[in-house]
Amino acid sequence: MSRAHPDLAPLAFLVGTWRGTGSGRYPTIEPFEYVEEAVFTPGPGKPFIAYRQRTRRAGADEPLHSESGYIRPGGPDGVELIIAQPTGIVEVHTGEIGRDEVCFRSEDVGLSPTAVEVSRVERRISVVGDTMRYRLWMAAVGQPFQVHLEAELTRV
Amino acid sequence: MSRAHPDLAPLAFLVGTWRGTGSGRYPTIEPFEYVEEAVFTPGPGKPFIAYRQRTRRAGADEPLHSESGYIRPGGPDGVELIIAQPTGIVEVHTGEIGRDEVCFRSEDVGLSPTAVEVSRVERRISVVGDTMRYRLWMAAVGQPFQVHLEAELTRV
Repeated sequence: MSRAHPDLAPLAFLVGTWRGTGSGRYPTIEPFEYVEEAVFTPGPGKPFIAYRQRTRRAGADEPLHSESGYIRPGGPDGVELIIAQPTGIVEVHTGEIGRDEVCFRSEDVGLSPTAVEVSRVERRISVVGDTMRYRLWMAAVGQPFQVHLEAELTRV
Repeated sequence: MSRAHPDLAPLAFLVGTWRGTGSGRYPTIEPFEYVEEAVFTPGPGKPFIAYRQRTRRAGADEPLHSESGYIRPGGPDGVELIIAQPTGIVEVHTGEIGRDEVCFRSEDVGLSPTAVEVSRVERRISVVGDTMRYRLWMAAVGQPFQVHLEAELTRV
C-alpha cells in the first residue's frame, strides 16, 4: 500500500491480484463454472482502488466476462463502486465497509442500446487472510433478484 | 490484432499504447496541461476493445484523471462506448465509426452520490498514422456544453 491514499486503509484487505474459480447460474442460462483473475490496485496517490477482472470458462480457452471500475471510500454509505462492462452495462453502487468485508448495492444500472436488461445488482466481497469470497445477486431480463455468481479466489 | 474478433476491424486504428500531452479548460477551473497514457486492447476473442487511460499534471508527479471502459461495435449507431471513472461517473455512449475516426455522444451519464454533476459528454478520436488526436466536450456543474479536453498522443 505504499503511496496509497490514507482514506484507503479500511479497504487495504482488497489490494492485490487474486485468482480462483467460481460458478454462475440464472434461470435463463445453463449453469457454468469459471476461472477468474481479479486485480485491485490503489490510486496511486488518489483515494480510490482501481478494479478489473476477467473470467474464462473452466477447462476451456474461452473468455467469458470482464469488467473494470473503481472503488472509492466516502459518501453517506461509506463507499462507492463504479463499474463498466463490455456487455454495455455500467453500475453505480453505494455500500458499507465492514471488517474484511464490503457490500455494494446498485443505485443505478445504465444500459447501452444493445445491452441485455439488468435492473439491480448487489455484490458482497469478503476476505479472510489470502482468501477472497464474493457473491453477486442480480435482477435481469425480467427475473426476480437472486444469486448469479459465487467465487473463491486466492491472493497470488 | 491477432486473436481479435473480426467485428473489430473497423476500429483497428485505435489499438495500441499511446502517450502524449493535452490541455484542459472549463469555466469553473484553472486551465491545465497534462501528460497522458492511453491503452486500447482488443478482446481477446470477444468483439470489444478494452480502454484505459491515466493523466498526470505536466511537469509534476501529480496524478490527475483516469478512466477505463470498453468500445463495442454494434447497435443502431454503429458503436458503443461504456466508461467508468474514479470520480464516481459512468458514461454510456453511442457513436459512429468513420475512416480513422470515431465519434461518441453520451446517451446516459450516471453519477454516484458524491460525484460532481455531469449531464452530457461527447468524444471524438481520430488517428492519422501513429498520431491520435481527441477532443472531449462536456456539460457539467450548470455550465453550457463546450470543449473541455484536447490532446495529441503518439503510438509507442
